[in-house]
Amino acid sequence: MDVGVWLVGARGSVATTVVAGAAALRAGLATPIGCVTEGPDFTGAGLPPLDRLVFGGHDVAGPPLVKKAEELSRSGVIPAPLPRLVADDLEAAEAEIRHGTDGDAEPGGATGQAAVVRRLAADITGFRERHGLARVVVIHVASTEPPVAPHPAHHDLGALTSAMEEPGRVLPPSSLYAFAALSAGCPYADFTPSTGVSLPALDELARSRGLPYAGRDAKTGETLVKTALAPMFASRALAVRSWSGTNLLGGGDGATLADPAAGESKRISKDRALPGILGHPVEGQTHIDHVPHLGDWKTAWDHITFEGFLGVRMSLQFTWQGCDSALAAPLVLDLARLLALAHERGQAGVVGELGFFFKDPLGLDEHRLQIQYDLLRAWAGSPA
Amino acid sequence: MDVGVWLVGARGSVATTVVAGAAALRAGLATPIGCVTEGPDFTGAGLPPLDRLVFGGHDVAGPPLVKKAEELSRSGVIPAPLPRLVADDLEAAEAEIRHGTDGDAEPGGATGQAAVVRRLAADITGFRERHGLARVVVIHVASTEPPVAPHPAHHDLGALTSAMEEPGRVLPPSSLYAFAALSAGCPYADFTPSTGVSLPALDELARSRGLPYAGRDAKTGETLVKTALAPMFASRALAVRSWSGTNLLGGGDGATLADPAAGESKRISKDRALPGILGHPVEGQTHIDHVPHLGDWKTAWDHITFEGFLGVRMSLQFTWQGCDSALAAPLVLDLARLLALAHERGQAGVVGELGFFFKDPLGLDEHRLQIQYDLLRAWAGSPA
Amino acid sequence: MDVGVWLVGARGSVATTVVAGAAALRAGLATPIGCVTEGPDFTGAGLPPLDRLVFGGHDVAGPPLVKKAEELSRSGVIPAPLPRLVADDLEAAEAEIRHGTDGDAEPGGATGQAAVVRRLAADITGFRERHGLARVVVIHVASTEPPVAPHPAHHDLGALTSAMEEPGRVLPPSSLYAFAALSAGCPYADFTPSTGVSLPALDELARSRGLPYAGRDAKTGETLVKTALAPMFASRALAVRSWSGTNLLGGGDGATLADPAAGESKRISKDRALPGILGHPVEGQTHIDHVPHLGDWKTAWDHITFEGFLGVRMSLQFTWQGCDSALAAPLVLDLARLLALAHERGQAGVVGELGFFFKDPLGLDEHRLQIQYDLLRAWAGSPA
Amino acid sequence: MDVGVWLVGARGSVATTVVAGAAALRAGLATPIGCVTEGPDFTGAGLPPLDRLVFGGHDVAGPPLVKKAEELSRSGVIPAPLPRLVADDLEAAEAEIRHGTDGDAEPGGATGQAAVVRRLAADITGFRERHGLARVVVIHVASTEPPVAPHPAHHDLGALTSAMEEPGRVLPPSSLYAFAALSAGCPYADFTPSTGVSLPALDELARSRGLPYAGRDAKTGETLVKTALAPMFASRALAVRSWSGTNLLGGGDGATLADPAAGESKRISKDRALPGILGHPVEGQTHIDHVPHLGDWKTAWDHITFEGFLGVRMSLQFTWQGCDSALAAPLVLDLARLLALAHERGQAGVVGELGFFFKDPLGLDEHRLQIQYDLLRAWAGSPA
Repeated sequence: MDVGVWLVGARGSVATTVVAGAAALRAGLATPIGCVTEGPDFTGAGLPPLDRLVFGGHDVAGPPLVKKAEELSRSGVIPAPLPRLVADDLEAAEAEIRHGTDGDAEPGGATGQAAVVRRLAADITGFRERHGLARVVVIHVASTEPPVAPHPAHHDLGALTSAMEEPGRVLPPSSLYAFAALSAGCPYADFTPSTGVSLPALDELARSRGLPYAGRDAKTGETLVKTALAPMFASRALAVRSWSGTNLLGGGDGATLADPAAGESKRISKDRALPGILGHPVEGQTHIDHVPHLGDWKTAWDHITFEGFLGVRMSLQFTWQGCDSALAAPLVLDLARLLALAHERGQAGVVGELGFFFKDPLGLDEHRLQIQYDLLRAWAGSPA
Repeated sequence: MDVGVWLVGARGSVATTVVAGAAALRAGLATPIGCVTEGPDFTGAGLPPLDRLVFGGHDVAGPPLVKKAEELSRSGVIPAPLPRLVADDLEAAEAEIRHGTDGDAEPGGATGQAAVVRRLAADITGFRERHGLARVVVIHVASTEPPVAPHPAHHDLGALTSAMEEPGRVLPPSSLYAFAALSAGCPYADFTPSTGVSLPALDELARSRGLPYAGRDAKTGETLVKTALAPMFASRALAVRSWSGTNLLGGGDGATLADPAAGESKRISKDRALPGILGHPVEGQTHIDHVPHLGDWKTAWDHITFEGFLGVRMSLQFTWQGCDSALAAPLVLDLARLLALAHERGQAGVVGELGFFFKDPLGLDEHRLQIQYDLLRAWAGSPA
Repeated sequence: MDVGVWLVGARGSVATTVVAGAAALRAGLATPIGCVTEGPDFTGAGLPPLDRLVFGGHDVAGPPLVKKAEELSRSGVIPAPLPRLVADDLEAAEAEIRHGTDGDAEPGGATGQAAVVRRLAADITGFRERHGLARVVVIHVASTEPPVAPHPAHHDLGALTSAMEEPGRVLPPSSLYAFAALSAGCPYADFTPSTGVSLPALDELARSRGLPYAGRDAKTGETLVKTALAPMFASRALAVRSWSGTNLLGGGDGATLADPAAGESKRISKDRALPGILGHPVEGQTHIDHVPHLGDWKTAWDHITFEGFLGVRMSLQFTWQGCDSALAAPLVLDLARLLALAHERGQAGVVGELGFFFKDPLGLDEHRLQIQYDLLRAWAGSPA
Repeated sequence: MDVGVWLVGARGSVATTVVAGAAALRAGLATPIGCVTEGPDFTGAGLPPLDRLVFGGHDVAGPPLVKKAEELSRSGVIPAPLPRLVADDLEAAEAEIRHGTDGDAEPGGATGQAAVVRRLAADITGFRERHGLARVVVIHVASTEPPVAPHPAHHDLGALTSAMEEPGRVLPPSSLYAFAALSAGCPYADFTPSTGVSLPALDELARSRGLPYAGRDAKTGETLVKTALAPMFASRALAVRSWSGTNLLGGGDGATLADPAAGESKRISKDRALPGILGHPVEGQTHIDHVPHLGDWKTAWDHITFEGFLGVRMSLQFTWQGCDSALAAPLVLDLARLLALAHERGQAGVVGELGFFFKDPLGLDEHRLQIQYDLLRAWAGSPA
């Protein structure tokens, strides 16, 4: 039976790469490079096959998927002939994209955000029914929001439900999508640092509905390397003194994060790993710069100083040059499959073992990449 | 009861840093940065304390330890005032340095290499007795030799013992030291890529004498980082296509490795890790250049290309700038303590769990740094 | 009146990019980025316009230009739609490609290399006449040859002419092309480190025929940066102690230079600049590695150590990531135009002022990039 | 006859390195690495010899020079034994350090800043007379100030002179020192981005008094490399699209520039060169981070993207690792000698030909390093 993947931000670069890539894999036009769950450690875990995924989603703007795919092929993110070869799949997904929300109340409708959630949930439910899907996993891949202002209703599901019937903004858009996904009985993942499902009231909702969720902020570059390298210093007892990072981002992501408020969400998320691994704070700042000329590419330079025996000063620096959407897309497929599995197994609440994918792993107090991978593998391999 | 550490290459930079550093730690002049076995994971393992180590060794040349230490302080490897502050310890160790071997037969003595081994073993035994040591761990930190030519006697202890009574070179110097250490009842470690103990006949000797050993070629720079980074690509299913490396070495190590034959030993050793971790060969060469102006420092630049989703090409590069002796010295202390523990526990033959320290881990078919660390920790923590 | 550009290696990546690029410029599909002679300093110098260049050449193999252009567009060297848009121009140039030489005698013809030269010269003359060209500039962009073995006839035109009527190889292919070009009355440039025109006998030929020439080995990457950076150290009196370089090359160029003999030509050429600028030799090696996965891209990492005031050690490193053909192609257009101008002005022999373009500037004992540029500008601006 | 060098910020790292280094050169303990004016291009220009310089200066705090020199030797800026070997010279300079100003009125004295200037000028005059000096050059090497708020009196010497007799702050400290230097008949240089002499009223003063001056903000790292590399792109017609820079600074300089206001002075100064050389603005930001663990060292990483032929995207990145004081100190000696020469020649007002030394070259609209050097050499070589 097919599994649905509902993408919030369905016309963005990541979502388009996901849909085009899944179609390419199904058609035998590509191999699943970058798909963690296609590795030998996940054979036999009972994951839904990649060719049984069906796509839809929400967005508030953007060109149709075929046009977006052509854009991405011009900038080298996807191979030049692909948009034409998988045009049918792109159009099928485009037909399942519904208008999302900017967080405001429904025009001419009820005054509170609850009505927005009901509409979004109905979109997802309709998708599931039209395609007769076993289940639908909702993944938020839309632009990063600023950190949310605290609100007392965030801590209690009853209070939140009441507050949302009243006029005014209680939740940011990302959390409306999470609320809608859970209301529709769907597993959910936060692929960005936006608030999304990471509020106590929504955790309560997920547990009460018996739904698994995961988050947040996929690690696809600087932080991925950080969490591979920092344990090296720790296990060798080398004393890291400073870790400075500069991230140059083009494209839409760069423009969003150039906004200091949104960038702050990202920086907070990026800065969690190091003290967690090293056990102490270190000097150094993390910059996120928007460099439009880089297009869909991103470059990160990290400079680390450390002391060795008798206090001798040494350094390590690295430069990562990656294509953001190509790094993110296969992880979206992985998360869809793994959350579908968790759902099938009846797991409720946060799935900390998916922390391997995230900068700020909800439900997991472990940032070392290898250990995270071992936890993931063990979880996937354990019988339902 | 004190434990002896017998260093082959006792007047080199690494050995001098070991002796001066251990003295500084004992005197409270430094903290044990870089000593793996001082971490919380090794408390209670029953390791001999750092301040109960006594030093001696073999060398064929070199200035006295105090002079060498002053040299090292001028080039910033050890703090400027240290040689003066620990001069007594340096002189004590200097008094325990005996003349080594270049592999030739003893002058005016018996014609075979067996006599050399007997003399070397007697030096070690004398050291143990003079100081009333519980045990002596022998660690080879002398200059890298070229790969050894195969010899039938290398495969059988009986044949080797006979052959060594005859004139001619059967073993390279490093293996003579290993033979001598085992003959004297001492655990042994190969800190360099030289042949040392890594011959079947010497493994037979170690097992028959109930002695533990470990090797070879400590990873202290490029390969250390490689074995931390390569698993990241593997666990993320990113397809590494090329891994190119250039190592710039000053000092004595650089001069030795600039010799193509010795450099070959090192390159073979360095090139083992990648295919082991990635599961397939990759493009790219590894260069080792001698740049005398770098002194005791070494710089490694590695450039990695990999493919992501849909074949998009990306890259990672890193530059490591380290001080060779400062990176090596604390690991010598770690190995001395861990092999002393293995000896006390009665472990015989190769201790694969010490592979964490080595580029070419004898007895261990695992190159991923974090997994190696976990194996080491588990081994150390298990009851005797 | 039109000017011909005859490319030796006419079906290679560089030549294909030249022909496709010139067509794109003529059609207004691109701007002349990378063309030095399109800058304001060259307005009014009387250079032939870019849209009056006509292309032909020699090659010994290779797919037709249209096919090669499609290959280049797939690997991102030229924009995806270009091969289709300029297909007519590519076919017109393809129709003017003649079979070259591998240096052997003509099959079934005269026994010496002189007959080869006569055939090659006739190809060029035919091209000039068919198109009614004012002049034809011949530029060697074929694969790098190993350094040539010395031969007494290389030093004297008379001796060379006689020797070439005899059986046997007197000249390498690149020099046969140079001989043919000059025989046909054409200016000539060596774009590679191959021997080409750089023999005393051929200089004699050029001067006796009143023909200008230039060379050799265009600087398009590491050496370009080197000749921009090294003068900085010199003018600031900083003492460069080592300069190490690693060049990673994909594609055909990488494969050719992976051959130690051909690579030697390149390394010799690359190593000229530094001592010339700094006034003293420095430590360090230059590596050229073939990394096929890089395709048409090349990456160079250079590491420089230098001393400052009171002997303090510092370092600079850079990583250059460029597309070889895209860097080379506009310089081929520049050289064609500048040599056409020199020819029109009646200049005979080597034109040292074109040294700005070359790693090993024939006729110029100046490697500092800025000074070379000023010499070029002054030369171009001076009246005929 | 001796020449005086009066350093504002006389107990800082740069000043201490200047005094200790000049003493080391005089004693034959070091060679003049990094001293531009010791090169062959300046022989015969009539510069005062390095061993005829006498040092004094102003500061508001700091340990005595001998103590500061010992600090610098511990962190590797100056050789370990030097402070002891040149202790007499350090003490002689220490005896000529007078208390400076923080810009406030004299305690218990006149209410305006004019009194401060009179006191500072008297300090310099006294120094000149005590040592019978031919002339004294004043160089500002104190901490960077924030940009100064505009004031109408900055544009007219008469207005400024009147305003300074009144209570209140009209000038920042750096400009008080400049005013004092010129009042005392001394040439002056701004080594930092502080306002200093760069006000129209002070230019008027310099010209009316027949005094030369130069500035500002010595280029000793990232900007030095920038002005060597950017002309390469320009002369090759490569289209630079972005230039991003991250500067990691330890020590006092880093702490000062971590203050956003002072950092702003530096960033403005650093950002002048690129548009000046390339002729158009480019994307990218410049960061200045304080990383205390770096001590006196600084690391700059610059990442440049550019387009080549047919729009192909390429990149260059560099990492500069330098010791700030060691880079600055020899340039202070150069400026002292060159301004002494200008003074002797009777040159008044800004000396644009000294722009070679500065990020923001007063009186020179040329940022290309090589051209700046040629202008300097020509100026020095021209007869008085």
